[in-house]
Amino acid sequence: MPLTPPPTLVALLHGPDQPGLVARVAGWIFERGGNILHADQHRDTEAGIFFQRVEWEPANGDASADTAAFHEFGRSLGMNVRVASSAHRTRVALFVSKADHCFHDLCLRWRAGDLPGEAVLVVGNHPDLAPMAQGYGLPFVQVPVTADTTAAAEARQLAVLREHRVELVVLARYMRVLSNDFLERHPGHVINIHHSFLPAFAGGRPYHQAYSRGVKLIGATAHYATRDLDEGPIIQQDVRRVTHRHSVEDLIRMGRDLEKTVLAQAVRWHLENRVLVYGNKTVVFD
Amino acid sequence: MPLTPPPTLVALLHGPDQPGLVARVAGWIFERGGNILHADQHRDTEAGIFFQRVEWEPANGDASADTAAFHEFGRSLGMNVRVASSAHRTRVALFVSKADHCFHDLCLRWRAGDLPGEAVLVVGNHPDLAPMAQGYGLPFVQVPVTADTTAAAEARQLAVLREHRVELVVLARYMRVLSNDFLERHPGHVINIHHSFLPAFAGGRPYHQAYSRGVKLIGATAHYATRDLDEGPIIQQDVRRVTHRHSVEDLIRMGRDLEKTVLAQAVRWHLENRVLVYGNKTVVFD
Amino acid sequence: MPLTPPPTLVALLHGPDQPGLVARVAGWIFERGGNILHADQHRDTEAGIFFQRVEWEPANGDASADTAAFHEFGRSLGMNVRVASSAHRTRVALFVSKADHCFHDLCLRWRAGDLPGEAVLVVGNHPDLAPMAQGYGLPFVQVPVTADTTAAAEARQLAVLREHRVELVVLARYMRVLSNDFLERHPGHVINIHHSFLPAFAGGRPYHQAYSRGVKLIGATAHYATRDLDEGPIIQQDVRRVTHRHSVEDLIRMGRDLEKTVLAQAVRWHLENRVLVYGNKTVVFD
Amino acid sequence: MPLTPPPTLVALLHGPDQPGLVARVAGWIFERGGNILHADQHRDTEAGIFFQRVEWEPANGDASADTAAFHEFGRSLGMNVRVASSAHRTRVALFVSKADHCFHDLCLRWRAGDLPGEAVLVVGNHPDLAPMAQGYGLPFVQVPVTADTTAAAEARQLAVLREHRVELVVLARYMRVLSNDFLERHPGHVINIHHSFLPAFAGGRPYHQAYSRGVKLIGATAHYATRDLDEGPIIQQDVRRVTHRHSVEDLIRMGRDLEKTVLAQAVRWHLENRVLVYGNKTVVFD
Repeated sequence: MPLTPPPTLVALLHGPDQPGLVARVAGWIFERGGNILHADQHRDTEAGIFFQRVEWEPANGDASADTAAFHEFGRSLGMNVRVASSAHRTRVALFVSKADHCFHDLCLRWRAGDLPGEAVLVVGNHPDLAPMAQGYGLPFVQVPVTADTTAAAEARQLAVLREHRVELVVLARYMRVLSNDFLERHPGHVINIHHSFLPAFAGGRPYHQAYSRGVKLIGATAHYATRDLDEGPIIQQDVRRVTHRHSVEDLIRMGRDLEKTVLAQAVRWHLENRVLVYGNKTVVFD
Repeated sequence: MPLTPPPTLVALLHGPDQPGLVARVAGWIFERGGNILHADQHRDTEAGIFFQRVEWEPANGDASADTAAFHEFGRSLGMNVRVASSAHRTRVALFVSKADHCFHDLCLRWRAGDLPGEAVLVVGNHPDLAPMAQGYGLPFVQVPVTADTTAAAEARQLAVLREHRVELVVLARYMRVLSNDFLERHPGHVINIHHSFLPAFAGGRPYHQAYSRGVKLIGATAHYATRDLDEGPIIQQDVRRVTHRHSVEDLIRMGRDLEKTVLAQAVRWHLENRVLVYGNKTVVFD
Repeated sequence: MPLTPPPTLVALLHGPDQPGLVARVAGWIFERGGNILHADQHRDTEAGIFFQRVEWEPANGDASADTAAFHEFGRSLGMNVRVASSAHRTRVALFVSKADHCFHDLCLRWRAGDLPGEAVLVVGNHPDLAPMAQGYGLPFVQVPVTADTTAAAEARQLAVLREHRVELVVLARYMRVLSNDFLERHPGHVINIHHSFLPAFAGGRPYHQAYSRGVKLIGATAHYATRDLDEGPIIQQDVRRVTHRHSVEDLIRMGRDLEKTVLAQAVRWHLENRVLVYGNKTVVFD
Repeated sequence: MPLTPPPTLVALLHGPDQPGLVARVAGWIFERGGNILHADQHRDTEAGIFFQRVEWEPANGDASADTAAFHEFGRSLGMNVRVASSAHRTRVALFVSKADHCFHDLCLRWRAGDLPGEAVLVVGNHPDLAPMAQGYGLPFVQVPVTADTTAAAEARQLAVLREHRVELVVLARYMRVLSNDFLERHPGHVINIHHSFLPAFAGGRPYHQAYSRGVKLIGATAHYATRDLDEGPIIQQDVRRVTHRHSVEDLIRMGRDLEKTVLAQAVRWHLENRVLVYGNKTVVFD
């Protein structure tokens, strides 16, 4: 039986660029006896911002001491810092409505050991997927939402998320818009899958829009949910070729495959601490 | 030395759907001694429209009699009909400004015998590409255009097109917008290449728009020019993956490869009489 | 509640090319009061072979009379003919071992109403997927196979296939090779998914081979199983980009997504009667 | 007019992995007053090899001192080191036969300022492309080769390469195989474009092979030429979808677009010092 590998730390930094940052970060880790496994950096030369993802084995496997110290070190450099330990499994909630393709896709990946993190909860505004969630051994909480009850429903959702200590919410074709209030009060991230190649066909019924416009490719976009609907930082996008022979129903069917793989890729990158948001964009250290 | 193959005819039809259309068209050709080489049809069941592309060898190689007769036959079916002979080489004009990548790409394809039709003229609002046009043996006509002189310049362009009996105008990164008046008075088609995945990033500086939005794919779109800028029927689109590492300049450079292949594909399909326009969409019989 | 649409017939024909085939087929259907919905044909001009897929609504919805008569008509043209009614749901068996990704993917598509035909049986050489098959409401038959017991095991498999009147066997990452004897005795088709871009990396452990060779794209290939292993007619292929950063384990994981979509596409095309085999190749009327 | 940016240095290192390498390299550059612009590393954990590409601005713009010192430093770490200055323009020779698509594509990219390095010479075994080379202002040397004269021809080629101080030879659809003797005596690299998705269809007439096998994607592969024909380290590959409708001639035509873009990408990466060869594979720091 394989030994559990020692925990590694991943730090994501960004802040004002200055000479010597790569050397200082590497030096700091080296002096504390750590061993850098991967380091990737990026400069937005126009904006003068430095971005880095660095992964290392701390000396003696002492992840918690390094975590605290690195935060302090990063602040001394004027950087925003996030540090995560490989020993921590991010707790994920799936928000669903009736469509089940992204839900099954993610659950099967977790069950196969293919995705890091851990699904801990399914929240649905409809009861349809409750039996399937139970089939995957996941608690299902139904929170019905109507135009009139949004505020109360979101309060209920936030309470359930807190109760399950959820860090990441994945909107797996959840068909309601979350309010800014929800987004501000949820302490973690929210990833959404939009069924078009944003910014084309933002808003509702994107496959119908694509069909009407006669485009030759359909797409899907995974992005962080922000207060501006369909305007959040894009994590991943992909497209597939279509022709005049495809009906709207074909686009919807073919789009499901796109939605699944694009959302799963975005969730994977997020859970591997590869995504850094700045402004309305992402840096993905893949 | 190979014999010239006998001419074939290609008919593009569309109109109200009705039972028996496939059989009637095939029967008409068969009764006149023709042999169908390819036949492809499509039904827009929602709109009740029938589309067909059929290619055949007329009996005795008599293309012109069949052309006239097929027009009449199509009208008797209530169909819009276009018939082209493989013996006819469509006359094409390239409109250019300073960027030369699409220009070279198309000219080299013609010179290699890779594209049907025939480039007969280059029109530039700047003189920059004149020597290269001459290098390809093509007449170059400079027609400077300013905001004040558009009407006169377009009159001059139309006169030159008439003089060279141009049937297809290809805007090979021509940086001016043609007026509705021009589009109505030019008796042939106009194909444009837009350097984005339309309808995303219509209008000016699309690579800058794409960079600002942080998309993960850039695109190019070839479409027929119509009175609504960037809204014409789309013929072909393609995309390429980009990352946060790519600057606007990288997007522009990488986009050039997309623009070349997307425009060349659209021009090829048009010249092979594979594109049928209806409403704001195309049916491409590829 | 929607009315069931009237059944349509799909005929796949191929045989020696001769003038007038398109017109004769269309005329035959028209004269019997049928209405052609789609017709697609292809000529292999080098080999002189004509291929056609034609779909029509028979008069009075009388599919069975047309089926028999069309067979006779096709033979009179010297053509090989296959006719299928849209009212018939092809019966499919999945052969599996331990890997479950293609199995789940296909079962979920059937359950969502996304695939034509009907899964009626799961056959596994290991018992691992039995509970999941039952979860989908499918009978699971375990037929253990070892090098010594292949003949007896295949006899058992054939008996089970007969019993369930299976027409199509899908090898959904079934890790045993079927004998020529099995392939000859099974009256229907067998589709396999190979986890490489054939003919590259035929044989075992293709992801390891791909890793060793340092290719920049990995692939998957769905093909009909024939007596020459990994040499059967290819139905569909796709690839995905990889880099030096990907370990063999990454290739295996990423390949699973390819295998799922490539196999599902091939099965869909087969069940829609879009695939015509001749020699070692396929014509796919998509 | 823009100032010339100060020269940067790019080092490519690889050798036995050991803790602290990232920190040591970064520290070395930092201590000498340099500023790291990019650093990318990779570990082949199985083979225990460390790879790094690091780009930095040396203090006072003194590139030559840092170059020599870094070589020594790298050796002290037990690493293979290559250092290149951005001020150096790699001298490139194109080897051609009669096909001109890759030749034009590369020359136009250089002329547009799109490719680093500098084309300094065209060598052809046929005279066909001489006028075009001259049109691009490049010396053209014809070196006819027959089976009997290979040794003498290669001696002549090597002499011409020496004379023009050529560092990189690009086989732009050059239709002869270079001998091992040539490859050993040429002091620089040789990049070849093979018109298939290697290792599928190695050897001659790959499009004919692909057509016969009935594959659904065709490909192109750019690789370093080594003594084992078509077995050299792969730099870049790409594919394009084909159908039964495409003849061998179509595959050849469509393949030309693939060959152009795949070869240009490989040449670009090589000239930007992004490609590290080890064993039969490449690490591409893109």
